[in-house]
Amino acid sequence: MRNFKEEESLNTLNHSCAHVMAQAVKHLYPQAKFWVGPVVEEGFYYDIDLGDVTITDDDLPKIEKEMKKICKDGKRIVRREVSKEEALEMFKDDEYKLDLISNLEDGSISVYSQGDFTDLCRGPHMDTVKKCRFHKLIKHSGAYWKGDKNNKVLQRIYGVCFPTKEELDEHLEALEEAKQRDHRKLGRELGIFMFADLVGRGLPMWLPNGFIVRRLLSDYITDKEISLGYQHVMTPSLGNVNLYKTSGHWAHYKDDMFPAMEVEDEAYVLRPMNCPHHMMIYRNSLHSYRDLPVRLAEIANDFRFEASGALTGIERTRAFTQNDSHIFCRPDQIKEEFKGVAKLILDVYKDFGFENYSFRLSLRDKNDTEKYFGNDELWERSEAELREVLNEMGVDYYEAEGEAAFYGPKLDVQVRSAIGHDVTLSTIQLDYQLPERFELTYVDRDGQKVRPVVIHRAILGSLDRFVAFLLEETKGNLPLWLAPTQVKVVPVNPDLHDDYSQEVNSLLLANGIRSSVDNRDEKLGYRIREAQVKKIPFQLVMGDKEKENGTVTYRRFGERKQTTVTQEEFLTLLKEEIKNKTIK
Amino acid sequence: MRNFKEEESLNTLNHSCAHVMAQAVKHLYPQAKFWVGPVVEEGFYYDIDLGDVTITDDDLPKIEKEMKKICKDGKRIVRREVSKEEALEMFKDDEYKLDLISNLEDGSISVYSQGDFTDLCRGPHMDTVKKCRFHKLIKHSGAYWKGDKNNKVLQRIYGVCFPTKEELDEHLEALEEAKQRDHRKLGRELGIFMFADLVGRGLPMWLPNGFIVRRLLSDYITDKEISLGYQHVMTPSLGNVNLYKTSGHWAHYKDDMFPAMEVEDEAYVLRPMNCPHHMMIYRNSLHSYRDLPVRLAEIANDFRFEASGALTGIERTRAFTQNDSHIFCRPDQIKEEFKGVAKLILDVYKDFGFENYSFRLSLRDKNDTEKYFGNDELWERSEAELREVLNEMGVDYYEAEGEAAFYGPKLDVQVRSAIGHDVTLSTIQLDYQLPERFELTYVDRDGQKVRPVVIHRAILGSLDRFVAFLLEETKGNLPLWLAPTQVKVVPVNPDLHDDYSQEVNSLLLANGIRSSVDNRDEKLGYRIREAQVKKIPFQLVMGDKEKENGTVTYRRFGERKQTTVTQEEFLTLLKEEIKNKTIK
Repeated sequence: MRNFKEEESLNTLNHSCAHVMAQAVKHLYPQAKFWVGPVVEEGFYYDIDLGDVTITDDDLPKIEKEMKKICKDGKRIVRREVSKEEALEMFKDDEYKLDLISNLEDGSISVYSQGDFTDLCRGPHMDTVKKCRFHKLIKHSGAYWKGDKNNKVLQRIYGVCFPTKEELDEHLEALEEAKQRDHRKLGRELGIFMFADLVGRGLPMWLPNGFIVRRLLSDYITDKEISLGYQHVMTPSLGNVNLYKTSGHWAHYKDDMFPAMEVEDEAYVLRPMNCPHHMMIYRNSLHSYRDLPVRLAEIANDFRFEASGALTGIERTRAFTQNDSHIFCRPDQIKEEFKGVAKLILDVYKDFGFENYSFRLSLRDKNDTEKYFGNDELWERSEAELREVLNEMGVDYYEAEGEAAFYGPKLDVQVRSAIGHDVTLSTIQLDYQLPERFELTYVDRDGQKVRPVVIHRAILGSLDRFVAFLLEETKGNLPLWLAPTQVKVVPVNPDLHDDYSQEVNSLLLANGIRSSVDNRDEKLGYRIREAQVKKIPFQLVMGDKEKENGTVTYRRFGERKQTTVTQEEFLTLLKEEIKNKTIK
Repeated sequence: MRNFKEEESLNTLNHSCAHVMAQAVKHLYPQAKFWVGPVVEEGFYYDIDLGDVTITDDDLPKIEKEMKKICKDGKRIVRREVSKEEALEMFKDDEYKLDLISNLEDGSISVYSQGDFTDLCRGPHMDTVKKCRFHKLIKHSGAYWKGDKNNKVLQRIYGVCFPTKEELDEHLEALEEAKQRDHRKLGRELGIFMFADLVGRGLPMWLPNGFIVRRLLSDYITDKEISLGYQHVMTPSLGNVNLYKTSGHWAHYKDDMFPAMEVEDEAYVLRPMNCPHHMMIYRNSLHSYRDLPVRLAEIANDFRFEASGALTGIERTRAFTQNDSHIFCRPDQIKEEFKGVAKLILDVYKDFGFENYSFRLSLRDKNDTEKYFGNDELWERSEAELREVLNEMGVDYYEAEGEAAFYGPKLDVQVRSAIGHDVTLSTIQLDYQLPERFELTYVDRDGQKVRPVVIHRAILGSLDRFVAFLLEETKGNLPLWLAPTQVKVVPVNPDLHDDYSQEVNSLLLANGIRSSVDNRDEKLGYRIREAQVKKIPFQLVMGDKEKENGTVTYRRFGERKQTTVTQEEFLTLLKEEIKNKTIK
């Protein structure tokens, strides 16, 4: 997706197109008064006071038609500098312009004109409206004047403009694709999750299909971790405020937390992260250098206070579940542990078919060492070690100075999504600070108590965000092993073919396949279509032939081809795909 | 366990023994002043001001010795009624007695004397101290005078007394048994869970071994429920306060909840139960009479504010996890659904070997119908239906009038534990109220929107409390399928037998058995003992013979017998026991 704000030539073009739109609106709604019309990442918009008129979907084509006319007419766009006094006089009937002008300085004010339309503007602009002809109005909404909900609601209209028709078409196609892949739309259609205001903003409720996906993902990563020597724990969703004072979160992270709850003489708070709980578990027993590394892991519920405006489906929520772990190790084990985690990340990405990702090695800013914890030698050694690990593994990475956490260097994995978002899914972070704050120790070879190092790491990251990403990536067409319903058995005629459908369905269920029969009294076409809409990977249409021969005829989601095989063959096909986590 | 307070004859005997103890204390500590000495459920105690003296464990035998002497001496216990004036004069040097007397009315005051000891007391008492001779002092602690922490700390000494030596011995044995079965002790020893003040009171942290047990239990019940047509969901740990106003909890249950958290213009609260969330999920889609019952289930995190004094290990906590479900059904399905749930309960109890339980059918109080929701006909029909279900199933039950919830009749299952506690593990409750409050509907056969009925049910109840119960019940010797470590492989000589031990261990791991090798540089006896202490079900001691023949020699926990079998035979034995959930 192009970035209209950052791409300079697109920016100017879209800015000019905003004026064209304003001109068109003025033609259609003479009462229109204009507030601001900036270019943002996704295109341009203009905030307009239309008096009592509220823009509807039907109005956009009309405005577009008028814009086309203006562009065809092809007036030149002319800049003129004016004095503040002159500007105040020009716009004396327009309280919005007067408000804007009052904040400008004399000598820095310009207006742009095109035919019968003049607008206060800093520019720059194209030289003619002709260049703005490949445009499209995208959406409209209400917007409080100056974003203050005590003010009047203005009409905001969004649009995009490109230098060529090809670029415009490509962009519109990408927008449509993004809409189809929007995890909020897919989540609703596939029964993955829901929200309800009465429950609360940013608090997702996972529906039966979502539970299946979440459980499979949790089990997948938990089992993988256990096989790699991780030990899972379960810790509570809240903690005494003193826990977060000890960890430093209370001082540095309080604004992102829910407020504390006072009970008896204590204060408790919903935890924003579970590191402190894991520190307490480590501290609960004595450790010898021989016992390290200790790898504690948890599928952990965490809570952060996000402003309601920032909430986005299950991508950004107030309650989420992390696939978290803390590795407590000796300094001489850092390299090996980092390598182990990086390998795990690659292994998992392979299972999910993620190929478009990059590793970022985040180092400290050498010119501003004050803000980092620990000494130079420690930093240089650990940064060198992480670099070595990456080189040895032969993975692509780039270095970013000044991007380290204050407690240590880290490795972030950025994955590019199907619609071009960059998402940080996984992270590995070295931490010298929490062991200090929680006074963690192990007994070294020489009997001395010394500090372990902590490695924070997340593989799937937030499971919620991971599911959002997966939905977007697969367009809801989840791989067989994750599909809530794997097979839908559809008898051609429920009166005649239900028995055989049930027989096959029972066989599938007995083999751990998530299968069900749609024997409702509905037309065959309707039932097949519904299985398609639900993106069920396999449809079995059961008619006379199948019943007679004891076979099944399957059709994969998204394919037209039908294949008839024996029950056993079908079962083998399913089991193989599930075992291999095949991605279609 | 006997109840000293409720059993009248034990009560009087123990009350007299409290006086004997006081007399003995007075002999040993002439400065002693006495506050109150009541009989409680677990025996008697006396609160005593000993000046600067603090009672230690070593003091109890000395006091007991003096008590024996007093009992042997065999003085009569004599009651005398005194006027308030006389009493005030008698105890004029004792501020504690003066405080007590000041609250008594003239004409109702009596004192009891035995030899050189006289105490203010209402009685009744035994006729002679001789009868108090079978006693034992159990423990001691500090206790604020009048329970107020601004007051002085008194010395509290607990004891028990029985009419016969046999009864005393039996009681002491039961106490010792209860101590061995205490889930807090076992939980610590077996690495199941921990608490930390910095995290918070009543907030258990499940350690790696505890996680394994919890995960197995969750999977066990979730899979069972799914096979019975339940649909699992996952809902957030908090909700908008309005959700609990809608459900009625805010009005009726607020004191048992954590305080609300205010963010933006809203208030959120940690949920004490998840019924309202499930109501919202039901309400999220349209339902036809054909789609019912809808059985929503969740392994749900809930939070209740319990006073810190009431917290008990993982039995009573502030954060816990419920094996909860809500069944939304038509009135004509109630009977079938109740039967299904009752069958599930019996099925689960069989898996865990619980045999000592009783069903309680809790009915409304017919003389006070005001406090119940719904009409007479509804109640009579549903009570009759539940009774019918129980009769048809042929299970033992008793009826308890007035024990119904205000929203409907219910069935509670009381399980008696190994040390004689009665625990309500499972419950099935009929609810006509939440469907009304949340305006739930389904479309009936005739196209009308009507209310479904909700059945609340819990099988394992709180998973935390269930694990506490299991630990107590099994004395920490969990059945093989639940044991965190199932097999410990112990090479006789790690230098010689480690390779073969690792070979067998790998075979076990590859077959999903939780096994590990103890090849530490420690004596064989030490390593075997440690596996015993950790109550690991199978120990494999691997020596020359095993290595040579490719066999394993196993010893079950708690048995002396050693058995040598082939690797395959051992694997089959394990797999069978796990599959059958065998209880040893």
